[in-house]
Amino acid sequence: MTAPRVELGAGAEFDIIRRILVQADASGDAAGGAVVLGPGDDCAVLDGGLCISVDMSIEDVHFRRAWLSLEQIGYRAAAAALSDLAAMAAAPIGVLAAIGCPADTDDVLRIMDGIGAAARDAGAALLGGDLARSPGPVVIDIVVVGTADRPVLRSGARAGDDVWVTGRLGAAAAAVREWSTGRVPDDAAVLAFTRPVPRIAAARWLAGRGLTSALIDLSDGLAGDAGHIAAASGVQLVLDADQVPIHDAARAAAADDDDALRLALHGGEDYELCFTAAAATLDGALATAFTEQFGIELTRIGVVRTGSGVMLRGAGGDVTSTDGGYDHFRRKTP
Amino acid sequence: MTAPRVELGAGAEFDIIRRILVQADASGDAAGGAVVLGPGDDCAVLDGGLCISVDMSIEDVHFRRAWLSLEQIGYRAAAAALSDLAAMAAAPIGVLAAIGCPADTDDVLRIMDGIGAAARDAGAALLGGDLARSPGPVVIDIVVVGTADRPVLRSGARAGDDVWVTGRLGAAAAAVREWSTGRVPDDAAVLAFTRPVPRIAAARWLAGRGLTSALIDLSDGLAGDAGHIAAASGVQLVLDADQVPIHDAARAAAADDDDALRLALHGGEDYELCFTAAAATLDGALATAFTEQFGIELTRIGVVRTGSGVMLRGAGGDVTSTDGGYDHFRRKTP
Repeated sequence: MTAPRVELGAGAEFDIIRRILVQADASGDAAGGAVVLGPGDDCAVLDGGLCISVDMSIEDVHFRRAWLSLEQIGYRAAAAALSDLAAMAAAPIGVLAAIGCPADTDDVLRIMDGIGAAARDAGAALLGGDLARSPGPVVIDIVVVGTADRPVLRSGARAGDDVWVTGRLGAAAAAVREWSTGRVPDDAAVLAFTRPVPRIAAARWLAGRGLTSALIDLSDGLAGDAGHIAAASGVQLVLDADQVPIHDAARAAAADDDDALRLALHGGEDYELCFTAAAATLDGALATAFTEQFGIELTRIGVVRTGSGVMLRGAGGDVTSTDGGYDHFRRKTP
Repeated sequence: MTAPRVELGAGAEFDIIRRILVQADASGDAAGGAVVLGPGDDCAVLDGGLCISVDMSIEDVHFRRAWLSLEQIGYRAAAAALSDLAAMAAAPIGVLAAIGCPADTDDVLRIMDGIGAAARDAGAALLGGDLARSPGPVVIDIVVVGTADRPVLRSGARAGDDVWVTGRLGAAAAAVREWSTGRVPDDAAVLAFTRPVPRIAAARWLAGRGLTSALIDLSDGLAGDAGHIAAASGVQLVLDADQVPIHDAARAAAADDDDALRLALHGGEDYELCFTAAAATLDGALATAFTEQFGIELTRIGVVRTGSGVMLRGAGGDVTSTDGGYDHFRRKTP
């Protein structure tokens, strides 16, 4: 049996991954029944519900040492990786950390300090890792392992479902923009970028109540990540522009309302959740209970319908296609 | 419950890891009973015998593009990582591959082609991965996942056991030395470096017959890796210099017999197995059956006794301490 695979959304990075997966398919699936879900979702899933994912962070691509301390760099790398467990509604077991770093012992320890803090905050143990000297950039690779009785995939969205998002978007992108232009971001933006909260408990709360037909975490930006749900589920997601919850820090950094929306749609690295729920299952009482529990909002931002891709419905009712999210093989450094 | 941890052998790299593990211990073990074995062995082990490890390869540290094709680089990175499953006597399930690479689609595909071939050769499925642009070196991080009913640890060696090694050592180091000095290595040395064979089937054959009290794969070099068994088991390994099986390619590249022994002891990257077996359990008939099955030799190279570290017994009976293996934070490029 070949393990099911998941369709990906638009982007040059995902074009490469599609070509890789064609090669992989051609080679067959040697491990057979031990693999429940192969590449393409936020985690691979093994028999018994074990979820596993890997996330690479590279200096001057994912972070800059001028902007962040080494502890912050480690924390952020691990939190971003742990967010992939949230995207499956999986409970963390542990992390493995591979670090490539110029030969400075204290640097490695400071990075590991941040990784350890993020793992601890998420209830994950340090399982192991690898240490190598890097001649150039600091490279951090985090493996996350978790478990879910019923992992929530990207592929379960159905026409008629509602589209929801947790929290507010665009603050991390606002921080990057401010740093990039030589300004000092406000504290909320810095915090969003340096200490993202993997929404693990929130995802498990939602999934445990049967409210998530499809689920993804927002790493590449809402437009791009919603596109992955659309592609995996074979549906179209229509997002209401005026419903997208924009973070105050994004509004503060933005030139105008359109620009703030752009940060929220395309900025990426929010590590909030986007999910679909059968219509009317997530009512006001549940949304209020969620906010009381987790201190963040739940916002209905659109609907699922037949078709493909992600469309944006403006205040006037006009519907336009969206671009994708952050794409490593299209754009330059942050 | 805090998952058991394993003591490491000598070396600056392992000094850093020891300091990391002190930090990790101080934070407690959040994931509790799901973790059977934490950091320090070749893989972490989860409840149910799931083994997982991560292995990072960085350009100009682990490989040079002047020496290897991108397919060879990918193959070697994946085979080296899969060797960590052999070191637990685990059966492979799959691999995840994170690649950092300058923005050249074909380069990524060629690396993935090699990774896919190594996974296929070992019977492992491609489970997923991550793709990032690297501003500098190519970085390949391979996660391996496997399963063993009874994973074989480094910590089971007991005084009185014999020390064994599979195959012949020093050929990969011979290739590196020849390339480094501008010569062309012979074909056997190139093959040893570019297409190491993770000894998974061999390890499972040995472990399945109860012949492995402790087991490790030879990545850092026999002296260093034997030191990890000694440290983890709280014993001393005494190796007979004239019993160490030296590869013909190492003899060909070496200045003299001492130099050939040095390549075999300290060269690293052989990816053969070193294991301990209770005295007289591994007899000549079993060794012959092993060689018939796998086409490589089994050689008894020493004994386990009380004490610590690794000692080398010369032909004249004199016993000297050995240095460690390859150490990322002590030596420079290969």
